[in-house]
Amino acid sequence: MNKWKEMVSARMPVAIEMLQTYCRQPSISAQNVGIAETVHMVRSMIESVGGHVETLDGGGYPVLCATFEAGPKGNPNKTLLFYNHYDVQPPEPLDAWTVEPFGANIVDGKLYARGVADNKGDLIVRLNAVALHQAQGGLPCRVKWLIEGEEEIGSPTLETVLRQHADLFAADACIWEFGHKDAQERPEMVAGIKGMCYLQFWCDGADVDCHSSLGAIFDNAAWRLVQALGSMRTVENRITVEGFYDDVVTPSTALTEIAHRLSYNVESANKIYGLKRPLIVSDDQIMTSLLYEPTMTLCGIESGYTGPGSKTVLPRRAQAKVDCRMVPNQDPDDILRKVRRHLDAHGFDDVSVSLVNGQKAYRCDMDDPFIATVLETARQAYGVEPVLWPNSAGTGPMYAFGEHLHAPIVSTGCGWYNSRAHAPDESVRIADVEEGMLHMVYLLEAFGRADVEPNGRTEIPG
Amino acid sequence: MNKWKEMVSARMPVAIEMLQTYCRQPSISAQNVGIAETVHMVRSMIESVGGHVETLDGGGYPVLCATFEAGPKGNPNKTLLFYNHYDVQPPEPLDAWTVEPFGANIVDGKLYARGVADNKGDLIVRLNAVALHQAQGGLPCRVKWLIEGEEEIGSPTLETVLRQHADLFAADACIWEFGHKDAQERPEMVAGIKGMCYLQFWCDGADVDCHSSLGAIFDNAAWRLVQALGSMRTVENRITVEGFYDDVVTPSTALTEIAHRLSYNVESANKIYGLKRPLIVSDDQIMTSLLYEPTMTLCGIESGYTGPGSKTVLPRRAQAKVDCRMVPNQDPDDILRKVRRHLDAHGFDDVSVSLVNGQKAYRCDMDDPFIATVLETARQAYGVEPVLWPNSAGTGPMYAFGEHLHAPIVSTGCGWYNSRAHAPDESVRIADVEEGMLHMVYLLEAFGRADVEPNGRTEIPG
Repeated sequence: MNKWKEMVSARMPVAIEMLQTYCRQPSISAQNVGIAETVHMVRSMIESVGGHVETLDGGGYPVLCATFEAGPKGNPNKTLLFYNHYDVQPPEPLDAWTVEPFGANIVDGKLYARGVADNKGDLIVRLNAVALHQAQGGLPCRVKWLIEGEEEIGSPTLETVLRQHADLFAADACIWEFGHKDAQERPEMVAGIKGMCYLQFWCDGADVDCHSSLGAIFDNAAWRLVQALGSMRTVENRITVEGFYDDVVTPSTALTEIAHRLSYNVESANKIYGLKRPLIVSDDQIMTSLLYEPTMTLCGIESGYTGPGSKTVLPRRAQAKVDCRMVPNQDPDDILRKVRRHLDAHGFDDVSVSLVNGQKAYRCDMDDPFIATVLETARQAYGVEPVLWPNSAGTGPMYAFGEHLHAPIVSTGCGWYNSRAHAPDESVRIADVEEGMLHMVYLLEAFGRADVEPNGRTEIPG
Repeated sequence: MNKWKEMVSARMPVAIEMLQTYCRQPSISAQNVGIAETVHMVRSMIESVGGHVETLDGGGYPVLCATFEAGPKGNPNKTLLFYNHYDVQPPEPLDAWTVEPFGANIVDGKLYARGVADNKGDLIVRLNAVALHQAQGGLPCRVKWLIEGEEEIGSPTLETVLRQHADLFAADACIWEFGHKDAQERPEMVAGIKGMCYLQFWCDGADVDCHSSLGAIFDNAAWRLVQALGSMRTVENRITVEGFYDDVVTPSTALTEIAHRLSYNVESANKIYGLKRPLIVSDDQIMTSLLYEPTMTLCGIESGYTGPGSKTVLPRRAQAKVDCRMVPNQDPDDILRKVRRHLDAHGFDDVSVSLVNGQKAYRCDMDDPFIATVLETARQAYGVEPVLWPNSAGTGPMYAFGEHLHAPIVSTGCGWYNSRAHAPDESVRIADVEEGMLHMVYLLEAFGRADVEPNGRTEIPG
């Protein structure tokens, strides 16, 4: 067992106690619960490890900017940025938990708590990796940290803070908030995300609900909206909004090859979700669709009476919510314009559409040596080959980082395949916390030396 | 002033006091409030006027069957049936009333109460017309009365009672529950109703809601339902379910002429409803569409997240409610089969459809002399030309009467154009109660003599 591995192991009791204390402090952004207390706690933890903290105000909950200088033998010209958030999802539905949501109790090697996987565990993992280097003569590089408190409500003020303080967060690379092992116990990492164009549709037919017998002569907002939505997508699931696919760049051969090497477990998905219909793509297209195809998902639709039995009403209005997961080069404002143009061209000028939430996609250059460094140190820490997704099928505020910081970004963390982020009984496994900490220790070391070995392969100190 | 007019006028204080007492007794079928008390009250009122009452049990709230024999000079071979209901809609929303819902107070010549227009007023009007004849030597014909207590919850057990007791209710003609004057102060009557085929659609996509990023590969129940509904109706509002119009009989020249003589006030509708779109038919088609065209109204649709802001969910299921107002000769079970066949033919075998509520349409033979008798006596009582709709654009349990009793049916009553049935501040005007009573007095007289004058024109006794 090498020196770092022993030291990580010895550090675990302290780290787990920190994690329990942190998880027992509720920090629910959606409900404005415990924010000030949590900010104080995070600040104290960082300062206890030698970090300097600034609190930034972008108009929402505080954003913490932490800085740790490189040690005397470290490289002051290399800066690694960590991105985390101190807020968590609401714990509801409470009766679906089998443990206390803010109890942070350990059962069968797992620590259960709201937010432990998403992503309080990763802040503690990284903080303790930093502490270990500090105790061993200092950090191999500079470390910065952006810790926000609004990730679970869509990071509404993050872009403002990043724009105002781009200098403060300047870094050579970034480790994104979290990650998890897949069902084959391989650490899964992502180097990008899809974008988001979340659209709200309304159609107003009248000032009041009308007796449904008037359907003989009155137009119907619910029918109008159904017809408008129906015009935007074929039964074969092709999006028919004119120009929707215009800016989609065909994935490079390299990206296509990466997709073909990754796999998606259809049987497992059927078990987890209880799907009633076949997938909408053939098996060999699953990964390319998840990674590289934009989507248009009807997230919600509502009009008129939907309670038990019958009510004979002609609804006064109808609404729908649609999310488009976008790929790099697509722009949410542009998609909004195209949807508007489509509605008008098809006679639906009475259907309004507005952008609720727009985020561009981001994908790292797959050839960036930072990716190789993250993967190589993961191999060393985990002892298995990690899995790299060029991007997640989901969305996050990564584009704002990429645009303002111009740095490669990889997300990795200490979750497992059943961590249940956002769901009851959220957990991390203690063993994964230890491996994750070792990975961060190795990464800091390798990153500080990366100029010396630009091929990205790093000899792990023994 | 003729004898009957004087007697009706003299009877008014008694009639209004009866109406106030009746309206002050809540009888809310949907909330099971005051049913037994109301049944007792109605029974006592009928017996006080010489009627014999049987209480029938069809499995729901009691149905009252009242019988009044013809007087010594009356025609015992002619039976007129009244249909009324003693139940009322719930008074909610209470804070929208400017008077007590069960206060039955008179303000500016109007009696305000929940249920006074729909249709406690008409029971009192008819009962007092019967009482006047009783006091003048007896009824000119036999009178029967079916008074149910479940009309406001869809008359679920009425058909059972009618089937079991068709003999008991055997009659030569029927006066339906209620009616009102239009905005030109003309009494409006209807001799039929449209049918109802209320359909519930479900589409299940998965056992649980899924993360919307999976929209890249998972099918979506909300999209499926939107596409299925969209396939059933064109943007031009033509119903495209194969065979939907097959059983629709082209209206006769006579019916078409009646429709063309009737008018619909588009300006008033725009004012009342605040319509955002033009009507879906041209002005000269409004009345024929209302009267003779079947409809397919999307009454409600629901899937996924429809609260404020965004939730990125791929919904596990979707539902919709559709009501088809049918015309004579269409059958709700047949329409259900045709919709099912349509869904299957268009690949929507994953969309379920079931019948929530089916009622056939009914329309009187417009040449039946009973209609002429009702209109002629209305002319005499109201002093203006009444308006006859061959059928209402709405629905009611009239078909069950027509099928089991084989008798012509006309609906008329003491409401006015702003009676607000089902809404706060429901009212009737005292003057309309008086005219309505005179009409019923004349009708009873004329109906008893109708055999003598089969042309339907009746000389009103002076």
